Amino acid sequence: MGKVLIIGAGGVGTVVVHKVAQNPEVFTEVMLASRTKSKCDAIAQTIGGGKIQTAQVDADNVEDLIRLFNSFKPELVINVALPYQDLTIMDACLACGVNYLDTANYEPKDEAKYEYSWQWAYQDKFKEAGLTAILGCGFDPGVTSVFTAYAAKHHFDEIHTLDIVDCNAGDHGKAFATNFNPEINIREVTQKGKYWENGEWVETEPHEIHKPLNYPNIGPKESYVIYHEELESLVKNFPTLKRARFWMTFGQEYLTHLRVIQNIGMARIDPIIYNGVEIVPIQFLKAVLPDPGELGENYTGQTSIGCRITGIKDGKERTYYIYNNCSHEAAFKETGMQGVSYTTGVPAMIGAMMFFKGLWRKPGVFNVEEFNPDPFMEQLNIQGLPWHELFDIDLEM
Amino acid sequence: MGKVLIIGAGGVGTVVVHKVAQNPEVFTEVMLASRTKSKCDAIAQTIGGGKIQTAQVDADNVEDLIRLFNSFKPELVINVALPYQDLTIMDACLACGVNYLDTANYEPKDEAKYEYSWQWAYQDKFKEAGLTAILGCGFDPGVTSVFTAYAAKHHFDEIHTLDIVDCNAGDHGKAFATNFNPEINIREVTQKGKYWENGEWVETEPHEIHKPLNYPNIGPKESYVIYHEELESLVKNFPTLKRARFWMTFGQEYLTHLRVIQNIGMARIDPIIYNGVEIVPIQFLKAVLPDPGELGENYTGQTSIGCRITGIKDGKERTYYIYNNCSHEAAFKETGMQGVSYTTGVPAMIGAMMFFKGLWRKPGVFNVEEFNPDPFMEQLNIQGLPWHELFDIDLEM
Repeated sequence: MGKVLIIGAGGVGTVVVHKVAQNPEVFTEVMLASRTKSKCDAIAQTIGGGKIQTAQVDADNVEDLIRLFNSFKPELVINVALPYQDLTIMDACLACGVNYLDTANYEPKDEAKYEYSWQWAYQDKFKEAGLTAILGCGFDPGVTSVFTAYAAKHHFDEIHTLDIVDCNAGDHGKAFATNFNPEINIREVTQKGKYWENGEWVETEPHEIHKPLNYPNIGPKESYVIYHEELESLVKNFPTLKRARFWMTFGQEYLTHLRVIQNIGMARIDPIIYNGVEIVPIQFLKAVLPDPGELGENYTGQTSIGCRITGIKDGKERTYYIYNNCSHEAAFKETGMQGVSYTTGVPAMIGAMMFFKGLWRKPGVFNVEEFNPDPFMEQLNIQGLPWHELFDIDLEM
Repeated sequence: MGKVLIIGAGGVGTVVVHKVAQNPEVFTEVMLASRTKSKCDAIAQTIGGGKIQTAQVDADNVEDLIRLFNSFKPELVINVALPYQDLTIMDACLACGVNYLDTANYEPKDEAKYEYSWQWAYQDKFKEAGLTAILGCGFDPGVTSVFTAYAAKHHFDEIHTLDIVDCNAGDHGKAFATNFNPEINIREVTQKGKYWENGEWVETEPHEIHKPLNYPNIGPKESYVIYHEELESLVKNFPTLKRARFWMTFGQEYLTHLRVIQNIGMARIDPIIYNGVEIVPIQFLKAVLPDPGELGENYTGQTSIGCRITGIKDGKERTYYIYNNCSHEAAFKETGMQGVSYTTGVPAMIGAMMFFKGLWRKPGVFNVEEFNPDPFMEQLNIQGLPWHELFDIDLEM
């Protein structure tokens, strides 16, 4: 159906390439580009058959992106590069008439500030250009937002509370490693907590609110309220929500490591001068930590991510829990990447498929819950992320 | 009496300059040199009166050192630069006929290996040149070695066991900071433990052996057997020693920080490639951590370092404990530096004084316990590091 350009050759990019290659009737021509072309070539080689073209591109540089877009002429760009690069890629899309999809919202390099404002500001430009921009189409944000839309559409007349619960019960056998880009991971996890209640945002200290939650096939795991970007668009698009929170599991050792990383200054996102050169400590730390793309081998256990929702259906209170469990080992067997990359990359491919099938295509900038969830939900079951529903159970919230 | 050149403008160098300036009858002409001349100028200014000359020098570079030595023509160099630089400075001393004193043994940059072999190999060269090299003249090594020599000379016929006990019960009010160069500190503390027993070295896991020890005016503090360089020369120079160990206190939080620093790879002393440049993680960490030279203000509490010795005197078993307690606040008030810098810098000045007075001067390379301890012990009391003795108490060892 169409030509797709994938930008970003990390763990998520690798999964996207694998899944795109599994759906050749949708993705008729595929290019993978990143700062380091050799990484793209290595991924393309694991697919084989010369199916994946590769290219070098500096995603910080609009002119360089435009050069690539004009030469390959993709219909859609799947952006799985760094969140800093969302805006340069969107600018290049507008300049070249290319549609856009990403998995994480823009954030400035020098400020840990998660909000859609910068990208939502492109609404008119994409509308006028007749181009579609799909924001946040990974697992969370992404599948969690589609889960919520699906619940609101089929199981509730009105949703009142939403608790997104994200558990990684995997064991990578390393003393410390992050499951995705350490720079982004640590910035996200060390920020203050924030949730939505009664029409306003409530801020907490980092990791202030926590309790054990039970996850299917896993059991109880200590879970912490952190801020996560999909909350911003979900409370806007589902105004009946009285409370919306995001919970993530962390082990004690992981939190100890984070605390020390902050204490010693290695979580800093402002540059220091080292031998006359500006270096951002957290970016240097990223270079020292294990590459999340190489955690896959020997990674055991599974992730469990879902939405716990309460609300009203036919005049009665009801509870609803929808989730996916993903095995790190199965993900690695299929794509060579662990579950966290897998659960992000598969939905990005499905979102792109929705676009090419014309199901998620309208001029403007949209979060995924603004589209019809049903065809996306169907593909989750087909493409490796099956979901399960529980009704009227104790949600522990 | 003589011209002295001090190399190194960190916390210890600052203390040495202050103490040298307090003894103008011994040190008639003084120069302070380091990689960054502005640091030397700032220290010289706190002394005032144009008493301290300053210069820029790259202590990694023998030619550059020779240039400086030939222009200033010092009689003695006090090396309080980095331990990697011991050999280049000794080479320059030999080339220019300059005597040498340092506070820490040479160690290669790329290997955490503490031994005197490299410096002892200069024995013949210094002897033939008629030059004196005094090794390890800080507190530990340095004062601890002189304490041992003093005990052996005055209080024992034969010493059998030596436990050097080093307690820092200070509080700098920071989540994590090292008391001296973090690079050297972390290398030293994270290595395997090692002690001398019955004629051989016994290796332990890092921090494997520990127990609370009581320190005078401080109380019990958990203390850990680590390897420390003076053990090597002491067991050689006091062959009656059946056991020799070194204990250092660490808080739980400090050890947790060290463990994490190792886990995340920031204690690595081999370079990684970052943006095409080789950077050694621990050296980068040093640039991010608080500067030990700036810990002085608000640093409360004290250090207590001493030697616990058993042996025979007049046919009877005896125990002996000799120690100095140093107040961080008093050290800061006098020199602008905290106690750990103070306890290292004062003995370096006293060693230099011993040299200029002709009391510690003989051709060759020597550890401090090979000289007469008495005049050095006398100066400790005069120059700010008074010592105390306890006889026939329970040493807890």
